[in-house]
Amino acid sequence: MIAQRVENLKPYQPGEQPKDRDYIKLNANENPYPPAPAVVEAICRHAQEAPQTLALYADPDSNQLRAAIASHLNQTGGVLANCQTLSQSISADMVFCGNGSDEVLSFAFYAFFDSNRPLIQPEHTYSFYPVYAGYYNIPLKKIPLHQDFSLDTEAMIQSAVENDSSLILANPNAPSSLALSLQQLRDLLSRLPKNRVHVVDEAYADFGSESALCLLAEFPNLVVVRTFSKSLSLAGMRLGYAVASPELIKVLHRVKDSFNHFPVDVLAQKAGVASCQSTTYYVECTKKIVEQREDFIAFLRNLGWQVLDSSTNFIFTTKPGVSGRHVYQVLKEAGILVRRFDTPGIEEYLRITVGTAQQMAQLKAAFPKE
Amino acid sequence: MIAQRVENLKPYQPGEQPKDRDYIKLNANENPYPPAPAVVEAICRHAQEAPQTLALYADPDSNQLRAAIASHLNQTGGVLANCQTLSQSISADMVFCGNGSDEVLSFAFYAFFDSNRPLIQPEHTYSFYPVYAGYYNIPLKKIPLHQDFSLDTEAMIQSAVENDSSLILANPNAPSSLALSLQQLRDLLSRLPKNRVHVVDEAYADFGSESALCLLAEFPNLVVVRTFSKSLSLAGMRLGYAVASPELIKVLHRVKDSFNHFPVDVLAQKAGVASCQSTTYYVECTKKIVEQREDFIAFLRNLGWQVLDSSTNFIFTTKPGVSGRHVYQVLKEAGILVRRFDTPGIEEYLRITVGTAQQMAQLKAAFPKE
Repeated sequence: MIAQRVENLKPYQPGEQPKDRDYIKLNANENPYPPAPAVVEAICRHAQEAPQTLALYADPDSNQLRAAIASHLNQTGGVLANCQTLSQSISADMVFCGNGSDEVLSFAFYAFFDSNRPLIQPEHTYSFYPVYAGYYNIPLKKIPLHQDFSLDTEAMIQSAVENDSSLILANPNAPSSLALSLQQLRDLLSRLPKNRVHVVDEAYADFGSESALCLLAEFPNLVVVRTFSKSLSLAGMRLGYAVASPELIKVLHRVKDSFNHFPVDVLAQKAGVASCQSTTYYVECTKKIVEQREDFIAFLRNLGWQVLDSSTNFIFTTKPGVSGRHVYQVLKEAGILVRRFDTPGIEEYLRITVGTAQQMAQLKAAFPKE
Repeated sequence: MIAQRVENLKPYQPGEQPKDRDYIKLNANENPYPPAPAVVEAICRHAQEAPQTLALYADPDSNQLRAAIASHLNQTGGVLANCQTLSQSISADMVFCGNGSDEVLSFAFYAFFDSNRPLIQPEHTYSFYPVYAGYYNIPLKKIPLHQDFSLDTEAMIQSAVENDSSLILANPNAPSSLALSLQQLRDLLSRLPKNRVHVVDEAYADFGSESALCLLAEFPNLVVVRTFSKSLSLAGMRLGYAVASPELIKVLHRVKDSFNHFPVDVLAQKAGVASCQSTTYYVECTKKIVEQREDFIAFLRNLGWQVLDSSTNFIFTTKPGVSGRHVYQVLKEAGILVRRFDTPGIEEYLRITVGTAQQMAQLKAAFPKE
């Protein structure tokens, strides 16, 4: 009764959302700050002043939002923690919007990867990639990380070249929190097959890495995927986007229009535009998060925990001789949720989202001290 | 550089959204009435009182909304124009929510139809079905309608049985506006393969057909797809759902969780719940639309136009010797958009959405009288 392909699915498992009590949620890399006041205002003003438009289909291609995203990227360089000027200006026709970057990634998998050759990805990375590969029957080749969780770029290049394959990369990576530099990314992309599309997923770039947006002019086969869910405090509104050449963006529209013509609702479009016009607010929030992150890393290292250098809004940590699973449980009992994984190789690591100063003080107080 | 499957896509073409002037939009079967005041209030209250929740992932399974939909269906029987009691009560675990019924349909195609046998559909029906079939590489068999646009149920049954196949049906159908009765649907379903899932897409059922929801107890292989976009005035917010046995609903969740874990944003969930609690308002709107529909059908017939009996919020009409394309153009120049199709067999028909009394008066005034 059910299609065979469903049997092969291994659905994504997100961070838990238990309802038994109020938790401090540091397990889903959400932003601890609410969206900018202008975002809430834009939502309410639109709903109250033009309720009839809620009954009408929204712009299927989110054109106003695409223009606002392009301006935002040109203003920030794609890194809120350290705004800079892009070498190439981004135009609206280089932007594709979807229902969260998860949907954008799903469309990118459909559009650019196929069943004829394996897609290359690092072994430990965003755990949705293998799920999409399963959804579309795309073979996947996972390249082990180095011992220190850095990417084995040589092995990835070799595999991509041997298989004439595409690569997908989260930069910064999750759950490691480590980032490749712009020069490392450029070196990597320059040695990958030119006739294949490669995707860099920059969900966390605003927190301190360099953005691959700078490389779009050099690599017409590069697709950069970004989200409003992390640095722009809109995980609940589902907004993500891809930036690439107008030709590749047209392909994503073609795929979108064959799956769901109107994936981004009218209020999400309005919220997105207002977010892109509230850069100053988000720069401040991002800086506070980076400050808390560095403070918490120092705290943990002081307790003997090993913490990877983070370019994200979370940290990835372990302590030899201490059970990560146990610390997770202790914190949960104290009302603080952090993330751990049953994945071989990282079972004893914790991934902890950086919260507000107050939340981090509570986390420190609850953290096992030995 | 692009996956081969993209070459085969034939994307969906929705009603046009020209921006050169303000049009009376009667071309996309949208509701001319805004959502209930309680819906706008729910959106604004949530955004203003709990802005932090916009930064957090929403309930991935829309549980509160699923419960509200179940109550709404139990209260209305799935037909706002003529509320009645369902023979079987709908429970929340029989409901699946997605980003518009287009996404729900896409998941259903993935979950229940495959490449091994053709899916059966009537020739003229919702034009997105062949697009999904192309997206997932599902062979499609289109069964011609009778001359009067009624479904050839015998031919559909014969083809489904011969091919051991699934059937997808819009009831009421579009663009014909015709509906099968409950007894006709029961007879049809009882003769289709029991080991295959069959989908009834009820986007327009609230405007006056009988709902297939009554048949769920008899047919565990039935999936009913419905939307908030038509009778509930929320096309801009993207909310659709499927109703079926808890077992089939679990399969849809499995598919959703392999494509996009959080497709329904937090404000859409709140708007949906408030809509389900505003039944009295929507019953009134629906009755006004049905009244305008019958009035406009009489007007057209009086002018010599052939109009099919409509169970929907639109009418499908033609006049021998008159070019539908020409009338479409005359109305567009008068600032009124209606829909026409380049599809062979229906090129000279117009599909006209029923608007408010005022809009219909303007339409009548602009309508060519000979």
